[in-house]
Amino acid sequence: MQIAKVRGTVVSTQKEPSLRGVKLLLLQLVDEEGNFLQKYEVAADSVGAGVDEWVLVTRGSAARQILGNEQRPLDAAVVAIIDTIHLEDRLIYSKKDQYR
Amino acid sequence: MQIAKVRGTVVSTQKEPSLRGVKLLLLQLVDEEGNFLQKYEVAADSVGAGVDEWVLVTRGSAARQILGNEQRPLDAAVVAIIDTIHLEDRLIYSKKDQYR
Amino acid sequence: MQIAKVRGTVVSTQKEPSLRGVKLLLLQLVDEEGNFLQKYEVAADSVGAGVDEWVLVTRGSAARQILGNEQRPLDAAVVAIIDTIHLEDRLIYSKKDQYR
Amino acid sequence: MQIAKVRGTVVSTQKEPSLRGVKLLLLQLVDEEGNFLQKYEVAADSVGAGVDEWVLVTRGSAARQILGNEQRPLDAAVVAIIDTIHLEDRLIYSKKDQYR
Amino acid sequence: MQIAKVRGTVVSTQKEPSLRGVKLLLLQLVDEEGNFLQKYEVAADSVGAGVDEWVLVTRGSAARQILGNEQRPLDAAVVAIIDTIHLEDRLIYSKKDQYR
Repeated sequence: MQIAKVRGTVVSTQKEPSLRGVKLLLLQLVDEEGNFLQKYEVAADSVGAGVDEWVLVTRGSAARQILGNEQRPLDAAVVAIIDTIHLEDRLIYSKKDQYR
Repeated sequence: MQIAKVRGTVVSTQKEPSLRGVKLLLLQLVDEEGNFLQKYEVAADSVGAGVDEWVLVTRGSAARQILGNEQRPLDAAVVAIIDTIHLEDRLIYSKKDQYR
Repeated sequence: MQIAKVRGTVVSTQKEPSLRGVKLLLLQLVDEEGNFLQKYEVAADSVGAGVDEWVLVTRGSAARQILGNEQRPLDAAVVAIIDTIHLEDRLIYSKKDQYR
Repeated sequence: MQIAKVRGTVVSTQKEPSLRGVKLLLLQLVDEEGNFLQKYEVAADSVGAGVDEWVLVTRGSAARQILGNEQRPLDAAVVAIIDTIHLEDRLIYSKKDQYR
Repeated sequence: MQIAKVRGTVVSTQKEPSLRGVKLLLLQLVDEEGNFLQKYEVAADSVGAGVDEWVLVTRGSAARQILGNEQRPLDAAVVAIIDTIHLEDRLIYSKKDQYR
């Protein structure tokens, strides 16, 4: 999985019928030091992630291993809202600090 | 999924029999700020996307999670025509504005 | 799918038994403007593509959605010989012109 | 598979229910000479790898070919703790030397 | 598939039980002109490839389309030892010449 920050949303009315009701988030990928990468992913959300939260995004067929997504044409999904990232002794990210 | 703009079409007569009747669009990938990337994808269309529209493209086995595509040798498909893209407070793209 | 030009062939006698009889083409990937990329793919051919023809290559599990390939360890296959590529109003490639 | 060094951990409480109890490691990818790459992966661990150990990471649907992971939305997993890496005649890495 | 040269081996004792007995080769990827790329893959071998031989490596779920690998967490496998590579009229590689 990759670390990403929720940056925005993508809205569509004319789409595959199976995608109705799926919330599509625009995620900016983040490197292991917490820096933003010039890469993004539009991913389905099922954990209730909001803008500015850091999340884990899974890609490929893994995105369909989520209740309700089994038959949707999804290649990316948010699977977790991150609480903390530790890199050796350092705390790279903490959700609590982010929002204090 | 990635954001892409429909740029053109690819036509073939000598092909896998299962691809007969499949419309193949030439998509240029777009970054999260709306800039064009030096990347493209040839993808099957089932949502009726036309040249200049911005779409979502799904890749890998997800392309076969669409009615009729289940057994086609496709690794990319257009799954939605985009109405709007929001990046935090900014409206990065709006289909309405695009065509006014 | 990606656009590619057939550049050559790869021959092997000592290989997975299921690959016997599979023709392996060396494909050079082409960008959306028709320029050659520094990327290639060795792909199974089932549409009878020959050197210099432009083709569509599918990758990943899609390569096994072809009659006979279902249980072969293939991650790339030629699925179409391209007749024409249109990028907006321009004809980027035409098989007819290529061979006149 | 790719070679990676365990650098840290990612912790999340709000996540896909199927990910409960899964240990998520932050891995830094390593090249074939043993140099660190500017690439990382967050992967599920089932072999008991700890910080500083060198491991093999498998990606894509392979991550779900592990007992207990079959239905988890994982696209990366640690599958082995590396003892030695040989590049021709040279010993590039040895777990024993690493820890002496 | 990609062309690669066998450069070495990776050994592990603490690993997924299903990987016991699997020989893991360190492969350096080669471009279509025969030049070495700064990319590698650790892949399972089932064709008996040895150091210095040029091989074809398949990636993704294709690696599990090999007898015995069906349920192993592998995302790369050697599927053929290459005899010759032809690029248009030129012989880029010949196993015979390599070893004369």
